[in-house]
Amino acid sequence: MRHFHDQLQDLLQKIVLMGTAAESMIQIATRAMMERNEALTDAVLAKERTVNAMQIEIDELAVRLTALQQPVGADVRFLFMATRITTELERIGDQACNICQNLHFVLQVPPLRPLVDLPIMAELAQKMVRDSLTAMINRDCAMAEKVMQEEETVDAFRDQIFRTLLTHMMADPGTIQRAISLILISRNLERIGDHANNIAEEVIYWVQGRDVRHPSLRNGEPRDGGHSSATQTM
Amino acid sequence: MRHFHDQLQDLLQKIVLMGTAAESMIQIATRAMMERNEALTDAVLAKERTVNAMQIEIDELAVRLTALQQPVGADVRFLFMATRITTELERIGDQACNICQNLHFVLQVPPLRPLVDLPIMAELAQKMVRDSLTAMINRDCAMAEKVMQEEETVDAFRDQIFRTLLTHMMADPGTIQRAISLILISRNLERIGDHANNIAEEVIYWVQGRDVRHPSLRNGEPRDGGHSSATQTM
Repeated sequence: MRHFHDQLQDLLQKIVLMGTAAESMIQIATRAMMERNEALTDAVLAKERTVNAMQIEIDELAVRLTALQQPVGADVRFLFMATRITTELERIGDQACNICQNLHFVLQVPPLRPLVDLPIMAELAQKMVRDSLTAMINRDCAMAEKVMQEEETVDAFRDQIFRTLLTHMMADPGTIQRAISLILISRNLERIGDHANNIAEEVIYWVQGRDVRHPSLRNGEPRDGGHSSATQTM
Repeated sequence: MRHFHDQLQDLLQKIVLMGTAAESMIQIATRAMMERNEALTDAVLAKERTVNAMQIEIDELAVRLTALQQPVGADVRFLFMATRITTELERIGDQACNICQNLHFVLQVPPLRPLVDLPIMAELAQKMVRDSLTAMINRDCAMAEKVMQEEETVDAFRDQIFRTLLTHMMADPGTIQRAISLILISRNLERIGDHANNIAEEVIYWVQGRDVRHPSLRNGEPRDGGHSSATQTM
């Protein structure tokens, strides 16, 4: 089965590449916002094609390996994780594109104010994506859990940015359209944080066999009798 | 293999039940909005627990069947579709909860105006979810394609509602907070339409083996040599 595990390793590498591309989309979109440079948004849209193509390639490979290699245990979990993580990464790319769309109006008009806390929030969201991928590469559940804890900070940024911009709009209705665009960008970033959180949950599922997606339902017991560590099989 | 196909049929039934629950969450959230009845939002939150529990149950079953039954062809596609569709349905439920959250402020204050086109948009989004599930039950790719075409209408509603509410806010800054809540609800409905669209894409993938998720990349050729109809194997 050595050959099979090389193929799984290859699949993991592809996910990492796709993740790196999605992460760079967030970074470029953020730069476009901070440097008020709309030309950069073209680079984001170009990268989206790459990310989408990688999703198709990885999912196809996961299905093919499942049909041909008849995997068991942590390898089955890995293949299901793969297709769920590509979904998250593809949507992270979508959100970067949505940020560019929401920037379109913002960059036509004078800046509202030093961008509230959006750049810090963007950096946090990007870090969450990067850390969730690092957790996957290293099968590091502690790191995955740290990513999951950062969702609260993202939500706090979202609420604070909302309140600040609301005050602006109330005081000066001339700022309404710009402020709404910025509120929508903060929602795009919030969703990127959500997706990173989902990736972190998938890593824990793969490595430990615990489904931690809905903590209020159960306390994450192994869900397929799988105590077997992923490192044993891959 | 008769037994295995009974198990797959059982899995399909569970997805339908989960879908029905998610769809009812949209319906109840919409009623809460139209009847200005915040008590109804509790029912939405209660149903979310059911939907989440079903996601865990279905995903667990899909992984177990894959490991034990060593499926091939359309059955592998079905199992991967299952876990991707539960992701969509769970997020439809999340969006219904977000609508309830956004309603919270709206229902504390006098109504802005007869709710723009939100109720019609909500009905359309709900119909898309129902139709995507019907397409799955009947393996009906024509119906799935119809769902995918409705995304344009959803986007048109989103833009029209945005413009109307923007005009309101400009004319009367006292309406800003209510209007933003309604704009956010229109975005929640847009995302529900997106998720229904994704379910429809999964149905086509399962039945025809064509990946239609990124039409700009390729024209949906079979991606795993799979011309075999799903009806043959299930």
